[in-house]
Amino acid sequence: MEPLRELTKNHVLGNPVRLGIMLYLLPRGRVLFRDLLKVLEVTPGNLDSHLKALEKAEYIEIYKVFADRPRTAVRITERGVKETGGYLRTLKEALSLIPPKD
Amino acid sequence: MEPLRELTKNHVLGNPVRLGIMLYLLPRGRVLFRDLLKVLEVTPGNLDSHLKALEKAEYIEIYKVFADRPRTAVRITERGVKETGGYLRTLKEALSLIPPKD
Repeated sequence: MEPLRELTKNHVLGNPVRLGIMLYLLPRGRVLFRDLLKVLEVTPGNLDSHLKALEKAEYIEIYKVFADRPRTAVRITERGVKETGGYLRTLKEALSLIPPKD
Repeated sequence: MEPLRELTKNHVLGNPVRLGIMLYLLPRGRVLFRDLLKVLEVTPGNLDSHLKALEKAEYIEIYKVFADRPRTAVRITERGVKETGGYLRTLKEALSLIPPKD
């Protein structure tokens, strides 16, 4: 039952919006704020507050890029890669506690 | 990216303690409050509030059993089985968006 216990411990990735952000970011490394908005279908204010929580936990860095105009972007940190990887392992272990149906 | 979007929508199972409860309950059908306490390592007050949220969403029913003394127990509902199954599928799809490492 260890994975279930572990699951309840990570308060950063316990939120599904923050988990969604990290799942999208993990294989990409960096992504624009507006792309995350479209992918996750959350409000800008909601996305912003979750990004700030992830930044505070040092899972991501928020920065500006200048294309046609300034845009907000986020990149994953080493810590973010490590913590998200660990959480995904825990989650997979927790899911594997369920016997397959049929 | 549909699974990431879906992931952010289920506010009942989006909480890791509630997900943990349902993961433990799904293969068992019913379980004692005190067993959930041990498995999840949460405080009684915390567990109680999450069970009430799951009951309100009609994922579980809370009832009393009388062994040596009255004990609180929970059983999963049909709706709970269906919703948890759906969420697990979404979660597995979301996890499969991540290319495997090696």
